[in-house]
Amino acid sequence: MRITLIGAGNLATNLAKALKTNGHDIVEIWSRTEESARTLSNVVGCSFSFGDIDIKPGSDIYIISVKDSVLEQTAARFIPVSPESIWCHTAGTMSVDILSSKGAKHIGVFYPMQTFSKTKEVDFNKIPIFIEAKEKEAEVLNALKELACTISQQVFELDSEGRRSLHLAAVFACNFANHCYSISESLLAERGIPFSVMLPLVEETSEKVHIMSPKEAQTGPAIRHDHNVMNRQREMLADKPELQHIYDILSHSIENL
Amino acid sequence: MRITLIGAGNLATNLAKALKTNGHDIVEIWSRTEESARTLSNVVGCSFSFGDIDIKPGSDIYIISVKDSVLEQTAARFIPVSPESIWCHTAGTMSVDILSSKGAKHIGVFYPMQTFSKTKEVDFNKIPIFIEAKEKEAEVLNALKELACTISQQVFELDSEGRRSLHLAAVFACNFANHCYSISESLLAERGIPFSVMLPLVEETSEKVHIMSPKEAQTGPAIRHDHNVMNRQREMLADKPELQHIYDILSHSIENL
Repeated sequence: MRITLIGAGNLATNLAKALKTNGHDIVEIWSRTEESARTLSNVVGCSFSFGDIDIKPGSDIYIISVKDSVLEQTAARFIPVSPESIWCHTAGTMSVDILSSKGAKHIGVFYPMQTFSKTKEVDFNKIPIFIEAKEKEAEVLNALKELACTISQQVFELDSEGRRSLHLAAVFACNFANHCYSISESLLAERGIPFSVMLPLVEETSEKVHIMSPKEAQTGPAIRHDHNVMNRQREMLADKPELQHIYDILSHSIENL
Repeated sequence: MRITLIGAGNLATNLAKALKTNGHDIVEIWSRTEESARTLSNVVGCSFSFGDIDIKPGSDIYIISVKDSVLEQTAARFIPVSPESIWCHTAGTMSVDILSSKGAKHIGVFYPMQTFSKTKEVDFNKIPIFIEAKEKEAEVLNALKELACTISQQVFELDSEGRRSLHLAAVFACNFANHCYSISESLLAERGIPFSVMLPLVEETSEKVHIMSPKEAQTGPAIRHDHNVMNRQREMLADKPELQHIYDILSHSIENL
């Protein structure tokens, strides 16, 4: 397919590479800044535009992958360029309806659920992609499904409300779990212990939930209701009230499982 | 070495298998209940005792691997059986001094830092083991180091205070991270979505911190200070005050990174 990518952030960068690798024709990259548009267009070998410069009409699919806060204005600006094409966004928390303006006829959502950093390449093949078409329009659904299936083995149809729940669940499983790693790292740093000693434990914790549910996999003082240990550990955090509060409320939540 | 294991829980089970596999002579397993003592002794092919029955003297090392809450009384009961041997416990949060009673001459700690479940075998080779000897007694340190090095490539000496910090850091990196998975699972269940869709994200989140620090790896609405998304997500948790509180305090903590 002929694809235009609007955005050159973490998600757009990883998506563009996966689409290119799987034989799609990336027509153009647009980004707010010249530098990021040029960088990504060099990687996938296509033309680019940026800032106030317009994009070309006539791609089969336009994928808008920008920050949630500027998604609506970006859509309103670019959709009139090629209103007969399929337009979709990649945001977990935004409704498909945010693209319903300026004469767009075929709109949808293309949400790959993963944590993306520019510096770490991901295997798109294993990333679940959640697609949606406004009013379940068959033409859009088929096109997005076809596109998704060329880069991933896990493609699901999910409406905007379901996707919002999914994204919230992902914040817990990814963003908050990672923040627990950050807190762990800062506690170790106080003793001069590198976070690398924690990696086998981090690995095993994530591996376990591949073969048992997180509830079954839970270990530690709170699930054992070991209040001696819990009281001693919360005392160790007496000079860090925010961490002590996090310790208390997560322990309490585990005890109530 | 000739080793007696006092305890047959998750840690003792995994440890006994690793010691046996690496050629040590497991002399005896003791457990509170006959069933668990018999089960583990069958696995490693040794004799067992349980409950009020005494254990045999004469092993090189006695490893006490029981719940923290009964560690002291278990040590007091068994150490007189063979006070000239080396006695150690496997608890992250307990001081080495808890074994200083009843004539014990050579005491230490042997703490493999991992999350253990009986039903999932672990590769002990990658588990960091933290050892300690009371008053840094060389004979005990050497014996524990020798033993640890036969089953793991990562062996560190660490005192009781350092080990307490380490264990607290592990509660965040493992127990609390896993609880974030549990919350994620419960949010998905409300929509009939299986937790398995989350696994590629869980995997990538733990893989990322092998090549960058958790702080660098942080993604999501809070680190972007995206208050639109955060407000919408906390609204979605309005009927679950405890989860909403967890959402708020973890988001706030990420914003303060």
